[in-house]
Amino acid sequence: MKTKAVFYHAGCPVCVSAEQSMLGALDPSRFDVEVVHLGTAKNRLAEAETLGVKSVPALVLDNHIFHINFGASLSDLK
Amino acid sequence: MKTKAVFYHAGCPVCVSAEQSMLGALDPSRFDVEVVHLGTAKNRLAEAETLGVKSVPALVLDNHIFHINFGASLSDLK
Repeated sequence: MKTKAVFYHAGCPVCVSAEQSMLGALDPSRFDVEVVHLGTAKNRLAEAETLGVKSVPALVLDNHIFHINFGASLSDLK
Repeated sequence: MKTKAVFYHAGCPVCVSAEQSMLGALDPSRFDVEVVHLGTAKNRLAEAETLGVKSVPALVLDNHIFHINFGASLSDLK
């Protein structure tokens, strides 16, 4: 069974770079990655905030949050 | 042929978490990951700085630098 991972982003250049390189590097046999654009899916903002996401891009993996470089803070997306 | 990736860290808790979850998630069939402890391998500091690493933990992948959360700044390791 695959582990679910969630990648939160906002379409920013930093986000796109992280998505292309970092997500593309994950083992596809072990992870199902959901990509959530918080700029458009504003209904997911509360969920991201509850998980502890402070900025995007961020990857939630194994209940750990990894903020990858810095594109935008969550508060700027509200 | 595998792509080389380099993970720079300094043994900090944030670094260990990133190493365990994030590096463990990379596709082992496509990446050879070298783990460099900049707290002990101080001879690699200049190399990391030249690549553009500002803080650890950081993963260099496809010539992109991904600073993952924040453990320590490079200048604190000198």
